[in-house]
Amino acid sequence: MADHRVITRFEGGMRFNSQVDNHTIIIDTPENDGGTNMGPRPKKLMLSSLAGCTGIDVVGILNKMRVEFSDFSMDIEADLSDESPKTYTDVKITYIIKVKEEDQEKVKKAVMLSKEKYCGVSAMFSQFADMDYEILFL
Amino acid sequence: MADHRVITRFEGGMRFNSQVDNHTIIIDTPENDGGTNMGPRPKKLMLSSLAGCTGIDVVGILNKMRVEFSDFSMDIEADLSDESPKTYTDVKITYIIKVKEEDQEKVKKAVMLSKEKYCGVSAMFSQFADMDYEILFL
Repeated sequence: MADHRVITRFEGGMRFNSQVDNHTIIIDTPENDGGTNMGPRPKKLMLSSLAGCTGIDVVGILNKMRVEFSDFSMDIEADLSDESPKTYTDVKITYIIKVKEEDQEKVKKAVMLSKEKYCGVSAMFSQFADMDYEILFL
Repeated sequence: MADHRVITRFEGGMRFNSQVDNHTIIIDTPENDGGTNMGPRPKKLMLSSLAGCTGIDVVGILNKMRVEFSDFSMDIEADLSDESPKTYTDVKITYIIKVKEEDQEKVKKAVMLSKEKYCGVSAMFSQFADMDYEILFL
């Protein structure tokens, strides 16, 4: 049996219903590509996956370190290749977070641990794109 | 300006809210990993992204070829590496579809064109995983 399994059904137009465990993800295209814009385009979902993966790592590590934080978000910007099939060539993750000044080094360590040891999505991205990680302290 | 941009905000627990254009994707972990299971885990979202990408290609190509089809779904099975960070090593996409027998070759051509020419997500996956494509005609 495979480690992970996802079933995705066509629902008409350009819309798909993807079952991820007990959750439903709708994927669609905008109207100008024949869809009805009921969900995100598929490629950008990879950026949500990347953010979720490294974000969960960072929160878990900061919790273990007993670092208090707030206003945590990630801004991911990605460039595509010119030729088809279009793939991500350059991906920049900016972690935006509010912590006490004395805890900033711990945030840097959490981001580094996610990047180098824990985040499988980040490791997969690094096989096809140049990855850049920045932290913006509020 | 980057080609694609996705903002993802931490909402508490292990839950993240990812804004993909005008759509919201919730990412979370199950209770036994500190979350509240309000959305899928991040890594599996990559499999939804893969299904959506190649599925939209196949539907678009079959529409252009004027091939009538029904009951189209994709079953994706993926194995993970043993070591951390855990990455997908083997990914198998099974396309399940109902068409007239004389149109089966056109479905094979659509799947091949998605794999080789159009699907950027598939091209990215092929940089880190062994990919396998099968078609099951109903």
